[in-house]
Amino acid sequence: MGFLDFQVKSQYKKARTGLLKLKHGVVKTPDLMPVATKATVKALTTNDLNEIGAQVLICNTYHLMLQPNADVVSKIGGLHKFMNWDKPLVTDSGGFQAFSLGLGKEHAVGKMFFPGENYKHSKPQGKSIAKLNDKGIYFRSIYDNSRQFLSPEKSIEIQEKLGADMILVLDECTSPLSSKQYTKNSLERTHKWAKKCLDIHKTDQALVGIVQGGHWEDLRKTSAKYIASLNFDGYAIGGSLGKSKKDMHNVLDWVIPFLPDNKPRHLLGIGVVEDIFESVERGVDIFDCVSPTRIARSGFSHIKPPLGTKKNKFRIKISSINYRTNKKPLDPNCKCKVCMNYSRAYINHLFKTNELLGYNLISYHNLYFMLELMREIRRSIDESSFPKLKKKWLG
Amino acid sequence: MGFLDFQVKSQYKKARTGLLKLKHGVVKTPDLMPVATKATVKALTTNDLNEIGAQVLICNTYHLMLQPNADVVSKIGGLHKFMNWDKPLVTDSGGFQAFSLGLGKEHAVGKMFFPGENYKHSKPQGKSIAKLNDKGIYFRSIYDNSRQFLSPEKSIEIQEKLGADMILVLDECTSPLSSKQYTKNSLERTHKWAKKCLDIHKTDQALVGIVQGGHWEDLRKTSAKYIASLNFDGYAIGGSLGKSKKDMHNVLDWVIPFLPDNKPRHLLGIGVVEDIFESVERGVDIFDCVSPTRIARSGFSHIKPPLGTKKNKFRIKISSINYRTNKKPLDPNCKCKVCMNYSRAYINHLFKTNELLGYNLISYHNLYFMLELMREIRRSIDESSFPKLKKKWLG
Repeated sequence: MGFLDFQVKSQYKKARTGLLKLKHGVVKTPDLMPVATKATVKALTTNDLNEIGAQVLICNTYHLMLQPNADVVSKIGGLHKFMNWDKPLVTDSGGFQAFSLGLGKEHAVGKMFFPGENYKHSKPQGKSIAKLNDKGIYFRSIYDNSRQFLSPEKSIEIQEKLGADMILVLDECTSPLSSKQYTKNSLERTHKWAKKCLDIHKTDQALVGIVQGGHWEDLRKTSAKYIASLNFDGYAIGGSLGKSKKDMHNVLDWVIPFLPDNKPRHLLGIGVVEDIFESVERGVDIFDCVSPTRIARSGFSHIKPPLGTKKNKFRIKISSINYRTNKKPLDPNCKCKVCMNYSRAYINHLFKTNELLGYNLISYHNLYFMLELMREIRRSIDESSFPKLKKKWLG
Repeated sequence: MGFLDFQVKSQYKKARTGLLKLKHGVVKTPDLMPVATKATVKALTTNDLNEIGAQVLICNTYHLMLQPNADVVSKIGGLHKFMNWDKPLVTDSGGFQAFSLGLGKEHAVGKMFFPGENYKHSKPQGKSIAKLNDKGIYFRSIYDNSRQFLSPEKSIEIQEKLGADMILVLDECTSPLSSKQYTKNSLERTHKWAKKCLDIHKTDQALVGIVQGGHWEDLRKTSAKYIASLNFDGYAIGGSLGKSKKDMHNVLDWVIPFLPDNKPRHLLGIGVVEDIFESVERGVDIFDCVSPTRIARSGFSHIKPPLGTKKNKFRIKISSINYRTNKKPLDPNCKCKVCMNYSRAYINHLFKTNELLGYNLISYHNLYFMLELMREIRRSIDESSFPKLKKKWLG
């Protein structure tokens, strides 16, 4: 068992608040982890992240094993020192890249696939550069095309060198377009890998098991039962999450009842506002999602209701000509430093001129927006007003 | 006369410290102004600039008249509010762009030309997109190729709308490859424009006249005498500054004796470490230079003596493979926030992965380095130890 203590603080039906104690501090849940794939949350400083109240960040094993590599990070004193972040850190195992660089690339889909809606599917992303067998994942490096290999043993070894507070087992994230048979075979392998990771893990980093099984009820339940039977410090729910929001909700409804109440639950790679409400309601404690910073770099800024709606995904496109002379802040109802000090017109100008500050300012606001939402959600659970808050946001 | 008060505080031979009082605050001189061409110092926040002790920034009229344009800035409440900077601001007049987009482009040179050394000269930069006549400068927009016109009247009108503390007259910056006859004709025009700007200027912004004349002694002295005879709030020395460091030093030696002692002197678009020492020694009070942030974006980090020397231009290339596993800070002798918290290895990693944070961190350090140098220079003048400091840095 790694160093982790989780206390459920309050509960409203299945939704719950909790205190997740890790080596580098306490995380109030539910919370969203900003994504620092390559040991930096894109366009933000760790000072920015402290200001907006980020409690924990997640980095990526595949990316960091290639560049700069785990030995370099370890030599500098571990990931916390390397990136100048003294609060909790998580590393994911590299399993997601087996998908995003493998079947995901081949199928040209993300971990959910909405027929007719998925922009990636319409433009194939090229040939897979990740293959799996029972031993592990054979990658090509995105940097120099060199051959790379990640086994359960190797993933744990690398994550131990990186030194995050909480680490994940190596799994295969299947594609929403994978067949049931493929998903079933993959699941057996994922289960073997989970056990192997648990057996060889030897540091006091918290170790999290991952439930897989695509969008099939029997596979998900089998997986939840098996993974929950192993003594992990926490439990994550991995993709694929199916072909509709309903599929994703089903997965949560099938899986969560099998997971122990006294351990944190992490829904991997999700989510946007709507997904967070639906998942918290079903008992999820931790999220991670690149969306707030990714959309920021495309000039999209988050905005609260009533202007922000499920339909506009709570975002407006600040880089649009409409905001060229607009004196208002990004979100008139926001109290973040960016909204207190800058106009939409200025940030529109920064995008028009490709100035790097534009990425910083919207990323800051968007993550503040999401973390503020998480704070509101925690309050609403404590105060048993979660449905009211959900209605305010989703209608 | 605009709102400006300048007091010489201490003097060591021709070098001097002073207090330059402007509408938005007091600037201790000599000082280097970070360049915020498009209303942002590239890759830095105004909070960063406050932390490193920036006292005054300079923005560019040509760029801002095109995008977002002066009316938009004025509508938002002026340049200070627009860019969230409450300390002094300067705008240059657009005259430099008459050169950089005109003859500078055609001659493929900067405002100094070192035969055999000038990297730009070896690869022509394309056709001029700026032509002059006595009325003003006819530009093409770098954004949409639209026709643009800047006259002395228009430059002042725009700078009044932008609302900086200190503004500059419209001039022509000549090329170091321009003939003496061309430079002489241009100088007459520049003088007429200077007078015109003074006559029509009607706000309380401080107005600065510009001495031109290339690297010809008679032209420079004529210009210094004439410009000094007009009642400007301050005096700037513009390019061309010739074909060698010696030429530049000559220009300063010719011009400065004609400028009034009780007004600030700005050497436009200069400088790097060496130029600053040589120019302060000759009586310059204010500098502006894009170099610290520009070299930062190419992965060059400033470093103090003894590692930093005139020969290596006080810089090391952090993005080089040599620093891949280097635990040291950018400059082991620096006390800036970046050097206190990050290793060269981490910043090398950020460059290798094209992460935006890399630009921010080196820009921060490089500007801190320069402003710290300016603080040291001011101290050394106050304490009559300027030659000792110069020797320490330049050998």
